[in-house]
Amino acid sequence: MSHPPPVPMSATLAADAVLARRRAAGERVLTLTSGEIGLPVLPGLAARLGAAAGENAYGPVDGSPALRGAAAGYWTRRGLVTDPDQVVAGPGSKALLFALLLAVGGDVVVPVPGWVSYAAQARLAGARPLPVPIVPGEGGVPDPDRLREAVADARAAGHAPRVVVVTVPDNPTGTVASDTTLRRLARAARDLDLVIVSDEIYGDLVYDTAAPAVSPAVHAPERTVVTTGLTKNLALGGWRTGVARLPDGEPGRGLHTRLVAVASQIWSSPPAPVQAAAAYAFTEPPEVLERIAASRRLHERVVRAVADRLAAVGARTAPVTATCYLYPDFEPHRASLTRLHGVRDGDALAALLLDRHGVGVLPASAFGEPGRPLRIRLATSRLYGDTDERRTAALTADDPLALPWIRADVDRLGEVLTAVTGAGTPAALAPHP
Amino acid sequence: MSHPPPVPMSATLAADAVLARRRAAGERVLTLTSGEIGLPVLPGLAARLGAAAGENAYGPVDGSPALRGAAAGYWTRRGLVTDPDQVVAGPGSKALLFALLLAVGGDVVVPVPGWVSYAAQARLAGARPLPVPIVPGEGGVPDPDRLREAVADARAAGHAPRVVVVTVPDNPTGTVASDTTLRRLARAARDLDLVIVSDEIYGDLVYDTAAPAVSPAVHAPERTVVTTGLTKNLALGGWRTGVARLPDGEPGRGLHTRLVAVASQIWSSPPAPVQAAAAYAFTEPPEVLERIAASRRLHERVVRAVADRLAAVGARTAPVTATCYLYPDFEPHRASLTRLHGVRDGDALAALLLDRHGVGVLPASAFGEPGRPLRIRLATSRLYGDTDERRTAALTADDPLALPWIRADVDRLGEVLTAVTGAGTPAALAPHP
Repeated sequence: MSHPPPVPMSATLAADAVLARRRAAGERVLTLTSGEIGLPVLPGLAARLGAAAGENAYGPVDGSPALRGAAAGYWTRRGLVTDPDQVVAGPGSKALLFALLLAVGGDVVVPVPGWVSYAAQARLAGARPLPVPIVPGEGGVPDPDRLREAVADARAAGHAPRVVVVTVPDNPTGTVASDTTLRRLARAARDLDLVIVSDEIYGDLVYDTAAPAVSPAVHAPERTVVTTGLTKNLALGGWRTGVARLPDGEPGRGLHTRLVAVASQIWSSPPAPVQAAAAYAFTEPPEVLERIAASRRLHERVVRAVADRLAAVGARTAPVTATCYLYPDFEPHRASLTRLHGVRDGDALAALLLDRHGVGVLPASAFGEPGRPLRIRLATSRLYGDTDERRTAALTADDPLALPWIRADVDRLGEVLTAVTGAGTPAALAPHP
Repeated sequence: MSHPPPVPMSATLAADAVLARRRAAGERVLTLTSGEIGLPVLPGLAARLGAAAGENAYGPVDGSPALRGAAAGYWTRRGLVTDPDQVVAGPGSKALLFALLLAVGGDVVVPVPGWVSYAAQARLAGARPLPVPIVPGEGGVPDPDRLREAVADARAAGHAPRVVVVTVPDNPTGTVASDTTLRRLARAARDLDLVIVSDEIYGDLVYDTAAPAVSPAVHAPERTVVTTGLTKNLALGGWRTGVARLPDGEPGRGLHTRLVAVASQIWSSPPAPVQAAAAYAFTEPPEVLERIAASRRLHERVVRAVADRLAAVGARTAPVTATCYLYPDFEPHRASLTRLHGVRDGDALAALLLDRHGVGVLPASAFGEPGRPLRIRLATSRLYGDTDERRTAALTADDPLALPWIRADVDRLGEVLTAVTGAGTPAALAPHP
C-alpha cells in the first residue's frame, strides 16, 4: 500500500485544504487558489432541493427525464438543438469528463495550459495525456496546427490519440478561443478522427453577453461532446451536478451507450434531490437568469480590479473576457524576483506569496506548463465575503469594489504584488508573522 | 465512437430500466431485479438534507469532519475502533470501491458469485478481475484455499493481483461468511500480501442481531478497507453517499493519500447537503436505529415468505440470514425446464420469467457464475408497496404478509414458480398478454 499515488491530488483542492488549515489556525489568508464560487445558493434552488428530499430511488443512470429535458432546452436556447436523449447527467461535470475518457478510450490531447484534472483523469483512465500548447491569447484550445503535428507524431510512435479536450471559455486564462480557431480545431479533429470533449462549465460567464462563446459543437456536431454544470454559474460546486450533451445520430448513440455503461458501474446515478433542483435551474426561470447575470457582473468587476493591480506592477495578463481567473506572467520581473527572493519559476512565486504573505495562488506548473514560466493563476471568486450576508451584498452592489471587505482584499493583493516585485516594501507590507 | 463498451451496463440497473419501461407501458410487472430498497426516507433525514440546502462549498475531498466523525463512531460502536482521519466519504460506496481499486492498483480477486460491478470496475481500472469461487453456503468471500492457488497461478503467469474484494453479508446469496472462513481469508491475504476490500453495505441487515457479521478488519486490521453507506440500511440509494474505513498506521495512511488523490480527480467531494444528513444518520440516534430495525424485520419476513415459495416448488436455496436476496438453484427442475420451455440456464430462466410472466430477476451469469447453472437472484426489497403510504404500512405492520399488496405479489410469485417448474398450469396462470 506504499507506492506513490497514481495521480497527484487535485492542485486546486490541495491548495484549498492548505489555506483552510491556515485560516483555521487564525492566520489571515487571501484565497485565490480554487475557482470555487463564493456566493450563496439561490433560495429558489435550495427550496427545490429540500422539497425533493424524499426522492431516494436511484432513477435512470443517465439522469431524470426532467433534468435531461431541462438541459436539452438549455442547449437548444443557445443554438445547439438537443434532444433529451442526447443528455447524460452525472455527479458533477468532472465525473462526466472522466467517464467520457473511459468511454471513448485512447490517448487524450489536452491544452497547455489546461485545467489541472484533464491530464490526471487521462492517466487514471489508462491513457496518455498528449499536451499541445494553445494559440497565445486563446486559452483552452490546442493550437490546431500543433494538434495535427502532435497527433501525427503520436500515431507514428504507435500511440492512439482519440480525444481532444477543450475548455471554452478557458480556465486558467480567462480567455475565449475565437471562432476562427474553433473552426480550425473542428477541421483538424475531423481530419484526425478525434472526438472533441468541450468543457463549457464557464459558458454563462462571458462578460459580453452579445458575444457568447462558440461551442465546437457548432462546427463539428458529429464528434463533439459538450459538458457543463451549475458549479460556476450558480455557485453549486458542493452539490455535485453536471450534464453532458452527446452528438446525435449513430456515432453519438454508440458513445451514449458506452458512457451510460461506465456511469452505471462507477456512480449509478446523480443524487436524486440535487437532480430535482438542477432540473429547475436548467429551465432558466427569471430568478435564475437574474442571479447568473448578477454573478457575471460581479466576476467582471472584481477581475478587472485585480487586472488593474497586476498591470500596475507590470505583470503581463491576456485580456480576460470571461470566468473569474487571471493568468499573469511575471517575466518582466524575473531579474528582481530572482535577486530579491531567489524566485525563478511560478512554483517559487506561488510559495513566496503563500509563505510570506498568506496569499494562495496556483503556479503555472499545475496547468501543465513546461519550462519555468513566472506565471501564476489567480481565482477571484472567493473575494466576495465570508458570510452569506456579505456575499449577497456583493451580488447586489452597484459598485462591489466600494464594499470594504472586497476593497481591502483587492488593495492588500495590490500591496503584496508591489512588495514581491520590488516596487517598494513599506513597513505595513512586511511579511506577517 | 462505435467500438463496444469497455464494460457492460450494470446488470441490475439495466434490468430495472427494462422493467420501468414495461411498467410505464401499463404492464403488470414484479420487480425482483435490483436491491434498491423500496422504503421511504426517514423524515428526520429528509429534514436535515433540506436544512443543509445552503451548503454549496466543495468542502474537504475526504468528506466533512462531521460525517467522518460520525462514521468513525459508527464503526467504533461495532468493535472497529476508528479515528475520523481513517474515514473517506464519497458519492456512494460504489464510487469508493472503484477509487480504491485505482488507488491500490493491480489485479483484483472477486468472489464468484459476486456483485455485478466488482469485475466491471476492475476492468475500468485497467486491472484483471480474478474470479475465485466461494465456500458453498458462505457467499461473498473467495474460498481461502482456492484464493491461494489462484493468486499463485496468476503471479506465476506474470500478473499482479493486489486486492481481494469480499462482501459481508453477501449479495447475491443473502448469506454471511463464517468467522472461521474470514480468519482463513485474513491469513491468506497476509501471506499473499493482498489488500482486503470488504464491502459491508449490508452490515446492518443481519437478521439475528445477537450474531452480527464479522468484518475481516477484525482479523487483518493492517490490510482491510471497509466500505459501507446508507443505501441499504436506510433506503437512501438515490442520495449517493458512502464511507470507507482505511487501516490505521503507516500503510493505511499511504493508501489514504492515494485514495483522496484519486477522489480529488474524479468527484471532488461528496454532495454537501447529503453529507449533512448522512452525518446525522451515522450518529445513530434512536429514530435511525428504530427505522433500521423495522427495515431488517420487514426484509426478513418477506425473504422468508419467498423462501417458502421457492422451497414449495423444490428450488434449492441456501438459508438466507441477511439482506433482501435469495439465490435459488433450479437444478432439480432441469429436465422439466428444458422439456417444457427449452430453458437450459439461468439466463433463459430469467428471460422466461420476464417475457412470459412479467417477473424480473437476474440470472447467475450476472454474478460471474461460469457454466450454465439454473440459478437466479431474487431481490425482495421492492415488494413493500408502490406508495410511501403502503411502504410505511409495511414497515410498521405486525405481519407484513397480511398486507394485501405484499401478499398478492408473494402469492403471484409462488404461482409463477409453480407454473414454470411444471407443477401445474391452471388457466389463471397462463402467460399474461
